[in-house]
Amino acid sequence: MRNFNEDNITQAVLDRLSGCSNSRTRRISEALVRHLHAFIKEIEPTEAEWAVAIDFLTKTGQMCSDTRQEFILLSDTLGASMLVDAINHRFDGESTQTTVLGPFYVEEARDFPLGANISSESGDEPLIVEGSVKDSRGNPISGALIETWHADNRGFYDVQRDTGKSALDMRARFHADETGRFWYRSIVPAAYPIPNDGPVGKMLDAQGRHPYRPAHVHFKLSAPGFETIVTHVFLDGDHYLDSDVVFGVKDALIKKLGKIDGHTSPGGQEATPGTSLLEYVFVLPDKR
Amino acid sequence: MRNFNEDNITQAVLDRLSGCSNSRTRRISEALVRHLHAFIKEIEPTEAEWAVAIDFLTKTGQMCSDTRQEFILLSDTLGASMLVDAINHRFDGESTQTTVLGPFYVEEARDFPLGANISSESGDEPLIVEGSVKDSRGNPISGALIETWHADNRGFYDVQRDTGKSALDMRARFHADETGRFWYRSIVPAAYPIPNDGPVGKMLDAQGRHPYRPAHVHFKLSAPGFETIVTHVFLDGDHYLDSDVVFGVKDALIKKLGKIDGHTSPGGQEATPGTSLLEYVFVLPDKR
Ligand SMILES: [Fe+2]
Ligand SMILES: [Fe+2]
Repeated sequence: MRNFNEDNITQAVLDRLSGCSNSRTRRISEALVRHLHAFIKEIEPTEAEWAVAIDFLTKTGQMCSDTRQEFILLSDTLGASMLVDAINHRFDGESTQTTVLGPFYVEEARDFPLGANISSESGDEPLIVEGSVKDSRGNPISGALIETWHADNRGFYDVQRDTGKSALDMRARFHADETGRFWYRSIVPAAYPIPNDGPVGKMLDAQGRHPYRPAHVHFKLSAPGFETIVTHVFLDGDHYLDSDVVFGVKDALIKKLGKIDGHTSPGGQEATPGTSLLEYVFVLPDKR
Repeated sequence: MRNFNEDNITQAVLDRLSGCSNSRTRRISEALVRHLHAFIKEIEPTEAEWAVAIDFLTKTGQMCSDTRQEFILLSDTLGASMLVDAINHRFDGESTQTTVLGPFYVEEARDFPLGANISSESGDEPLIVEGSVKDSRGNPISGALIETWHADNRGFYDVQRDTGKSALDMRARFHADETGRFWYRSIVPAAYPIPNDGPVGKMLDAQGRHPYRPAHVHFKLSAPGFETIVTHVFLDGDHYLDSDVVFGVKDALIKKLGKIDGHTSPGGQEATPGTSLLEYVFVLPDKR
């Protein structure tokens, strides 16, 4: 119960958890201690290196704000988020594949009517998104909630602007129509570097990695009786599809944009010349 | 280079580190990824649990300030700090044993003359500390720098008061005399809970652990040509010696306080009645 050294301290800390009444908390705590100690024993950090680690974690927390989540960026860039995602989505092959939520999701996005233009930017490459939401038997999920958000044509999200959350843009909630379909207008998003002016950016630099994600549109789809799906649709041809800094790309989520002069959307709106079309069929698994 | 799942994502992240030019950074990054992924695979966190982990780390960083270091508390309470300490102090048995620095060290402490009273508190149990600093051959280390700090009789450090770092107290730097000796006056410190109004306090609660450390006085000893020693001297008889929340206690660092009515310190000062004496001989290892 004292005189701890390299050989006995791990067991000593595990013993100290014997009073933990919640079995899940105890199991997580025990695993954390074992893996953290194994990491330390493997790298044998100097005291100066450990101080750098403490400082890195401190600065990562302090970088977080209402509109910036640096620890999600850390989890994403270390592949931890995609691993957690994979563990939690062992669905059969019928369902739409999932990928990271990312740090730019905003719960309080605005509801829009189908067909709305959700971008305040004009003069950019216009985009029409048309999707449908189905169950694994191919039936439409009428009224499904679609949350969608994406970057602008320079690769920035609304919340990265000076206005923060006070001027949401390129971000919306829709409800699918009776046939499970939804559609909206916006602009074509660009590939972007994850915010790299903080500790995670420094880490990527030190690791010799670029901070880019290939261009994509985020979707979160939910409906009563079904598992919620968090995913992106990536734009085919992007330079970074094979080196996404957060390891989020899956072939089944890549779609080619088409030029659709003269295309008429389900709501009867005509596309302006030069508009691109992004189509995707989302399949939600039954509630487990 | 895409389509990552539970089986291939760990290797994918390791592959991404191949451009890391600094071999130490690469080794640490690789170990971090392997152990972090192994932890996740073992506990299989739900997405809600992973969000709790992200939030815990975020709040831990945001709790840190000029006078509060919550990530050091986390490292200490998980036994990580003592493990790093053990790895970095594989000295022979001659040297003074080391223990955690803790979160209350302040670099800019004030220099005092030998014999000074370093506590502004009066009416508490008076203490005289007398130490000597030697090399492993028993020779005095004249002029050695002694940094010392401790809690008050309610278990609080100066920097935990509203005055923060602007009114340092029970904290001093001394230089040993020609015979390697130093001595000062203060008050007997109490056992204390580590600051537990933050995320680490919540973690200890959830783990069914108390937040207490047995009473102790901190010392950091350094001199040219010798390894620096960071340690405490613990007061014998304390209730928490066998359950120190940071796993820092070693038998060789425990000393019994004596009442020393009529004792005369090296500087010729007489102790007031009821004063306690804490004596310790510190042995610094030769520079490696
Ligand atoms: Fe994104
Ligand atoms: Fe302390």
